[in-house]
Amino acid sequence: MAGSKCVRLSGELAKQLLASVDSVLFDCDGVIWRGDQAIPGAPRVIELLKEHGKKVFFVTNNSTKTRKMYVDKMSTLGFNASEDEVFGTAYCSAIYLKTVCKLQGKVYLIGSNAMKQELEAVGIQQTGLGPDHIFGKQTDWANVPLEPDVKAVLVGFDEHFSYMKLNRALQYLTRMDCLFVGTNRDTRLPLEGGTAVPGTGCLLQAVETAAQRQAATVGKPSRFMFDCVASKFHVEPGRCLMVGDRLDTDIMLGSNCGLKTLLTLTGVSTVAEAEANQKSGCSERQGMVPDYYVESIADLLPALQG
Amino acid sequence: MAGSKCVRLSGELAKQLLASVDSVLFDCDGVIWRGDQAIPGAPRVIELLKEHGKKVFFVTNNSTKTRKMYVDKMSTLGFNASEDEVFGTAYCSAIYLKTVCKLQGKVYLIGSNAMKQELEAVGIQQTGLGPDHIFGKQTDWANVPLEPDVKAVLVGFDEHFSYMKLNRALQYLTRMDCLFVGTNRDTRLPLEGGTAVPGTGCLLQAVETAAQRQAATVGKPSRFMFDCVASKFHVEPGRCLMVGDRLDTDIMLGSNCGLKTLLTLTGVSTVAEAEANQKSGCSERQGMVPDYYVESIADLLPALQG
Repeated sequence: MAGSKCVRLSGELAKQLLASVDSVLFDCDGVIWRGDQAIPGAPRVIELLKEHGKKVFFVTNNSTKTRKMYVDKMSTLGFNASEDEVFGTAYCSAIYLKTVCKLQGKVYLIGSNAMKQELEAVGIQQTGLGPDHIFGKQTDWANVPLEPDVKAVLVGFDEHFSYMKLNRALQYLTRMDCLFVGTNRDTRLPLEGGTAVPGTGCLLQAVETAAQRQAATVGKPSRFMFDCVASKFHVEPGRCLMVGDRLDTDIMLGSNCGLKTLLTLTGVSTVAEAEANQKSGCSERQGMVPDYYVESIADLLPALQG
Repeated sequence: MAGSKCVRLSGELAKQLLASVDSVLFDCDGVIWRGDQAIPGAPRVIELLKEHGKKVFFVTNNSTKTRKMYVDKMSTLGFNASEDEVFGTAYCSAIYLKTVCKLQGKVYLIGSNAMKQELEAVGIQQTGLGPDHIFGKQTDWANVPLEPDVKAVLVGFDEHFSYMKLNRALQYLTRMDCLFVGTNRDTRLPLEGGTAVPGTGCLLQAVETAAQRQAATVGKPSRFMFDCVASKFHVEPGRCLMVGDRLDTDIMLGSNCGLKTLLTLTGVSTVAEAEANQKSGCSERQGMVPDYYVESIADLLPALQG
């Protein structure tokens, strides 16, 4: 129904929405925590949802943590979660390479130690982790030693990203049979105080430009994140709620997968941006209009406690 | 006249073309040399053009050499040229910042020592040259010390490109008054044997993605390279010939500036690609169809010796 989206959620409406879903997917940063601080009330929301028999999952584009690292962080911040409930792009990209690509061979990894661990957990070896400094001249770069059994380039967040890594990725990707996968396209990692640092999207764009190829991406808004949850647990899209702070990733994922969507204002996106998308008349931007919004997920507490 | 473009140049037609121009602009790599080898006959072509009273200029997107370095390389390969005749993007980006932007302040440089030298030659100081390794955590990156008098970010080829440089560029570019300039958008540097390494375009794309801003670029096909020549020497566009091996940079520059254009097949682009552009019916691609082509610029020798 036109005009019925982007509605502020409270009171009876919140109760109705929660009654209409069996599963809730939460983004993490900007939704249940900010940096190293839990959003006040968020641990209790998660706890009450579970008490009401809802399945709860955490889906994040951050590729720098394993599921175990997430559970540890959540525990420190007062959340009760198990590894099974956590879907980060370090884990999901390993699953993607294993189950969708059925990769036979190694990965050239531009990424983190967490990605290495998640790859190894599904039996995929990697090469490339850590610094890779420049040496020699252009002809040396073009003839840099490559490992013959590398069959995929995987790009995630990598603080050691360098020209040499970009070059090595290009040399692997000029092989005909080399797959090309990225964890996500987030252009910036927002930090407290309105600052930000470059995100994985910048690194992926550099590699794509060099390789003149486009990577398949695993993270939100690509539907693989949801498929990953749905393949392990029974999740009916129409009875699932996606809660996030970003219109272009979280809400877009929900729209792409036919989920109900809830924007929370404790992170990146604003109601004004959602309304601008709604009024734009641009069909792609309609996917970036949430069904509902709240100031904070703590606004769900009355409906869960009532 | 439709159908009269992309004509093979020889015999009388070559004589007519040369008689119709006063100035000839040459791209360098793939046109007058390949790597460290002169194209056979190319030094003699340049010499004879000058003997016939033609002004000759060298315009290159390569940002790793000063004009002096170019003249030295040309001398080694048997070409007779002066610094005044050479227009590389290291030099042209310094001129652009000085004369077009009228920059008051420093440059944060992602680039080469040659770029530093050309900037200093016009009185612009830089910061950023050389390696910049990662340290600390995300909050340290967002709060990396910045120099207050930096008023422009300039991106050229930089083998020390790193995540920290990308981050530093982002932090400078979030300042309201920071200019953003790139030397060129070439995505790859082609080498002998069909290999290639990543070009400046990859680095620029990464910075643009992080900054969510588009850089002004100085190099071909941007017309600034031609304006740079034309502002120092009297060059009438209609009586000027652009000779290059790349359709997307050299020939496009010629089209953008109303020059006559000649594709030489000793480098990157092919006649088939030129013909595909011509037949595409796409107006942007018509700029990537040369007026004429030769196998090598040595094919001009008979017309010059006759």
